[in-house]
Amino acid sequence: MLVNGQIADSISIEDRGLLYGDGIFETIICEQGQAILFDQHIARLQQGCEALELARQNETTLQSEIMDVAQGEDCVIKVLVTRGSRMRGYRYDANDETHTRIVYRSPLPEIPDTFYHQGITLGLSEYRLPSNQALAGIKHLNRLDQVLACRGWEDDYSEKIVLDNDGLIIEGTMSNVFIEMNGKLKTPVLLRSGVAGVMRQWLVEHANLMDIEVIQSELNLEDLKQADAIFVCNSVVGIWPVTKFIDQNFPISSNTRTLMTFIRDKLSNLYIAL
Amino acid sequence: MLVNGQIADSISIEDRGLLYGDGIFETIICEQGQAILFDQHIARLQQGCEALELARQNETTLQSEIMDVAQGEDCVIKVLVTRGSRMRGYRYDANDETHTRIVYRSPLPEIPDTFYHQGITLGLSEYRLPSNQALAGIKHLNRLDQVLACRGWEDDYSEKIVLDNDGLIIEGTMSNVFIEMNGKLKTPVLLRSGVAGVMRQWLVEHANLMDIEVIQSELNLEDLKQADAIFVCNSVVGIWPVTKFIDQNFPISSNTRTLMTFIRDKLSNLYIAL
Repeated sequence: MLVNGQIADSISIEDRGLLYGDGIFETIICEQGQAILFDQHIARLQQGCEALELARQNETTLQSEIMDVAQGEDCVIKVLVTRGSRMRGYRYDANDETHTRIVYRSPLPEIPDTFYHQGITLGLSEYRLPSNQALAGIKHLNRLDQVLACRGWEDDYSEKIVLDNDGLIIEGTMSNVFIEMNGKLKTPVLLRSGVAGVMRQWLVEHANLMDIEVIQSELNLEDLKQADAIFVCNSVVGIWPVTKFIDQNFPISSNTRTLMTFIRDKLSNLYIAL
Repeated sequence: MLVNGQIADSISIEDRGLLYGDGIFETIICEQGQAILFDQHIARLQQGCEALELARQNETTLQSEIMDVAQGEDCVIKVLVTRGSRMRGYRYDANDETHTRIVYRSPLPEIPDTFYHQGITLGLSEYRLPSNQALAGIKHLNRLDQVLACRGWEDDYSEKIVLDNDGLIIEGTMSNVFIEMNGKLKTPVLLRSGVAGVMRQWLVEHANLMDIEVIQSELNLEDLKQADAIFVCNSVVGIWPVTKFIDQNFPISSNTRTLMTFIRDKLSNLYIAL
């Protein structure tokens, strides 16, 4: 674990990351110590820094710290950047580049093979995500929405869909959602809430290489129920086919299989394909 | 500084308070080591624990830790309760009482006497607070709204009003707002956003003892501009009369003076009266 480049496993209790959630983070999977989708993670991290007027990060430093911490192993690396502890109160000085940069390692998550081979069951969270253009898309440290979206989790479900106050589908609690209709993929637009996942973004940009069209649009529960197929994804777990939404069954489509193979071949062998 | 009752000035970088802002806090002013409005702060803290399904706190333990840390001095004590670090990912177990309890001390804020005697100038934040019934009123650790509401702060202003997306007045960046119309006080309802301040609540409950009526209602900028008088308050600074909103002047009303004296006499000599 590194805090501003020094070995440490704790931070000051006066850090604004703790006091206000005043910062951003990335969760990156590493294969033999190599950060997968590194450029995309860094791009989103820099966008987050810009949105919050945090100091832009030195990419070379970050990359070398991730390699230091990953130690050549398969693991998950979490990077946090907070506004540090110099300024008291909510106000901040956009010209003050003080920040706390944390890089730490966790083991790969233990995911049953069945999640990939048989698909998962998706539930519906009762929590509604608020709309907030200023924070939409950013992976910031104010994640009570996601925590509360997990309230009362039943073991029947491996992931849950979360809607906004207008009933639009935004995302899963820790993943993005894609639905297939007539051979085309659709994924919710994330202009007013939600986290624009790095895997989602990569699929939006690269699916056309496999002759698969992806459209970002407003989607509601009716769209989901009428979908030909559904999957959820993030940059750590890859793609999970959804074979059941509450009590309605869905197949694993050939497009879903194609994309599972595509991310394994193009990005990392850690992503399980069928 | 105490962390779970032990002397410490840092917490684990895997604490959910840092990772997700999964916790709550109170900021309490102490006069000669005595926590002012202690019962009200604890009541709100317990409400916050309940809303987030965090373990209720032992009030005797908290009171004794605050006294330990305050050491008989005039100071500000901050109490944080987070969900600790046992559970990975957003999910949590509502039956798991693991938590991190932090109690630490800061000096009293340095506030110019003129803020009380001549009043302050109030600005208007461009940031809009999102509506979220599940989190409204709670003093949780997701405070990016307040941080962003302070963006581009001009020195002309000592506090700024923040509106919601419907243009309703919610609060100041670090205070609650009261306006006076025809001898009655009005303060925004906080059912969809905002922090229900302890001083606000105390004034709502006790102003009638001074024959002052307080109504909680929806208020917009027009109401503010047509007010006879304005003040902002919180439990650390007491009451600041507002004598200017952007470029419009307001008097310090006799009701405002009365309440400033009232909180000094009833609550603490640290609250400055005219």
